[in-house]
Amino acid sequence: MQIVEAVRWSPDGTGVRIIDQRLLPNEYLERDLNDVDAVCDAIKTLAVRGAPAIGVCGAMGLVASIEALRGQSPDHFRRNVRSIAQRIRGARPTAVNLPWAIDRMMVRFDTAAGTNDSVVEALREEASRMLEEDREMCRRIAAFGEALIPDGARVLTHCNAGALATTGMGTALAPVYLAVERGKKVEVLADETRPLMQGSRLTAWELKRAGIPVTVLTDSMAASLMRSGGVDLCIVGADRIAANGDVANKIGTYGVAVLARHHELPFYVAAPVSTLDRRAPDGSAIEIEQRNASEVVHPFGIATAPLGVDVWNPAFDVTPFTLVTAIVTDEGVHRGPYDFARASS
Amino acid sequence: MQIVEAVRWSPDGTGVRIIDQRLLPNEYLERDLNDVDAVCDAIKTLAVRGAPAIGVCGAMGLVASIEALRGQSPDHFRRNVRSIAQRIRGARPTAVNLPWAIDRMMVRFDTAAGTNDSVVEALREEASRMLEEDREMCRRIAAFGEALIPDGARVLTHCNAGALATTGMGTALAPVYLAVERGKKVEVLADETRPLMQGSRLTAWELKRAGIPVTVLTDSMAASLMRSGGVDLCIVGADRIAANGDVANKIGTYGVAVLARHHELPFYVAAPVSTLDRRAPDGSAIEIEQRNASEVVHPFGIATAPLGVDVWNPAFDVTPFTLVTAIVTDEGVHRGPYDFARASS
Repeated sequence: MQIVEAVRWSPDGTGVRIIDQRLLPNEYLERDLNDVDAVCDAIKTLAVRGAPAIGVCGAMGLVASIEALRGQSPDHFRRNVRSIAQRIRGARPTAVNLPWAIDRMMVRFDTAAGTNDSVVEALREEASRMLEEDREMCRRIAAFGEALIPDGARVLTHCNAGALATTGMGTALAPVYLAVERGKKVEVLADETRPLMQGSRLTAWELKRAGIPVTVLTDSMAASLMRSGGVDLCIVGADRIAANGDVANKIGTYGVAVLARHHELPFYVAAPVSTLDRRAPDGSAIEIEQRNASEVVHPFGIATAPLGVDVWNPAFDVTPFTLVTAIVTDEGVHRGPYDFARASS
Repeated sequence: MQIVEAVRWSPDGTGVRIIDQRLLPNEYLERDLNDVDAVCDAIKTLAVRGAPAIGVCGAMGLVASIEALRGQSPDHFRRNVRSIAQRIRGARPTAVNLPWAIDRMMVRFDTAAGTNDSVVEALREEASRMLEEDREMCRRIAAFGEALIPDGARVLTHCNAGALATTGMGTALAPVYLAVERGKKVEVLADETRPLMQGSRLTAWELKRAGIPVTVLTDSMAASLMRSGGVDLCIVGADRIAANGDVANKIGTYGVAVLARHHELPFYVAAPVSTLDRRAPDGSAIEIEQRNASEVVHPFGIATAPLGVDVWNPAFDVTPFTLVTAIVTDEGVHRGPYDFARASS
């Protein structure tokens, strides 16, 4: 089975090789990021996306961007590393994983002694460690979640929480990949996920590439498909999980959860423990970003509504924990009542 | 308040004036249909759409198409009228209102005596009567349904069951128009209604034109809007209603009904009695048309999913009567348990 690698080192190890997700599903292009402009541009324009992938890509991109500075005087070199780190850190201000990853790199930077070369190597090791940790996180979610996917299951998902959103085999899709690897027959139903269509553009693409049967439907068709008995369970990712288990994820997730409850289907969330926000006691503490109206009424450059009409376009919604059958993290399968404020990690 | 007229006589009375809905919301163009080619083309290409509008347009279009034949010999004339009627009747084979309307015209034709001129006038009168009946149907739905719309209501609707789908003030939107005319403050939330976007393209357009506040959202956002308290009630149209009150309507309607139930919101259906299908004991007897995959994965000529991916694209879904708070017809407000098989009409 061929699971795509969204972010990895380029073959000579000096650049970051990404799949340019702006071009999917129409064109498959791998792109090497070799300097800070390319790294920031890729993150800003969503060539690379998904919170885990962005964080690791930023850390690796920092290493790629300072390769060319090895010959500078140590003072110059150290100043430039800091300035490049700041630029990458701010490429997407709302993504929490990016500043986290860069801050971790800079802690390593501050303790790295010796020549410029040895500093670069120390940072490369740290970035490689983060890459490996992210992949391991995916594998652990896969291992814990795979037991929830019965043989023959028809799995509905929303948005893309797959390999394209991480550096590994994904979060929500990781249990699916592992179940198929272990010989189970699994079929995925992919909500297209308006407005930005990550479901049809990305989830359907990576699953088809891996040879896993996938069917695309509009978000409005999920209810009818459930009623007709065409769905066995739902599994989605998460952008942020409050201490009580309320889940913020791509807009439309909450609707899927309500429909799953009505049709008595399991509704699972799969996300790394880094997604847990212990300072948010419940979902009401999570601020929901409103995005540009044009995503809704001007998709693909086509006007689909009268000019100047009012638009409601929240990027995320919150699913109350009461609708969540279980939350799969890289530490295990959690069932309600959730109390992540007291969790060990 | 300016409610659009989707179908009416052209000013000189010899043609059918329609709003070309293929161009909405980007361009407002009225088009006069003066011969059978233009009539069939308008119906086939959805320049005119909505079951009630299509039926009346077909009947009026028959009259417009035979105007030029007045000078023919009576035999020729009668043969040509029959042949034109057959062509219009078959313009959209699945729409039940079109054959119904043409058949009714031909019953009048068969009993019309005298000159070609008097036959044309008899058919014009019959078509005008159908036009007036359709408008009256809308006004009656408005009158019965208006009481269900409280002052200040925020009304969520799906697809377009407005003025553009009838020759009058619509079905689902008729109570909204009348409520506003009577001085109530009403705001409409319009699901965009993927895949064909009749909500954002048509419902938002006709409401904005009438000066009624309207906000567009993707279908996936309705759940979150309900949870946030932004919806007071839902009202939708119907394509077919079974004897037990099960409602077939645009795909996505059933999902809205489930969400309304979960959030304890009223879910109303508004449709003419001609929509009742007494031969269908329940929704399972209603066949659901599967439409072309390209509507889902190739909207507006843009590929939004990998080539050749499987697609599920049912045109309609069925909402069980248990989720329907009330059905508003031109004969009154019906509440469950519904028994349309025994209804008076």
